Amino acid sequence: MDLRDVLAANLRRLRHAKGLSQDDLAYEAEVSRSYLSQIEKGKYYASLKIIEKLASVLQIEPWELLKAPEREK
Amino acid sequence: MDLRDVLAANLRRLRHAKGLSQDDLAYEAEVSRSYLSQIEKGKYYASLKIIEKLASVLQIEPWELLKAPEREK
Repeated sequence: MDLRDVLAANLRRLRHAKGLSQDDLAYEAEVSRSYLSQIEKGKYYASLKIIEKLASVLQIEPWELLKAPEREK
Repeated sequence: MDLRDVLAANLRRLRHAKGLSQDDLAYEAEVSRSYLSQIEKGKYYASLKIIEKLASVLQIEPWELLKAPEREK
């Protein structure tokens, strides 16, 4: 599980927790929906600029998007 | 203070804590020294791939590089 997968899992979880669709989050964070979709599939290493924007919309700290939920794995 | 500055400050602090020069860290993380230097100056939004490599060399979790040291600011 690399950092792309950690980001993907956290993003899906936190986006759902806010009741946002991919379209909603992409629109508010000013990224394309297809790019967001790929990030949520763990396809890309996003840049910190994207991480910052997504965290801002989700009202969390950027580092929370990179923290693995289960440390024992 | 945006995420570039948080990364820059953490990187300098954690690199010094390990007793590594920029050359050492750049070499071990397989990035150029000039790129690392710019990141430590807060010039670039690094990608998660770079964050992952740097954290690996510094023996920390990637998210630790993004956590602001002082939350009250």
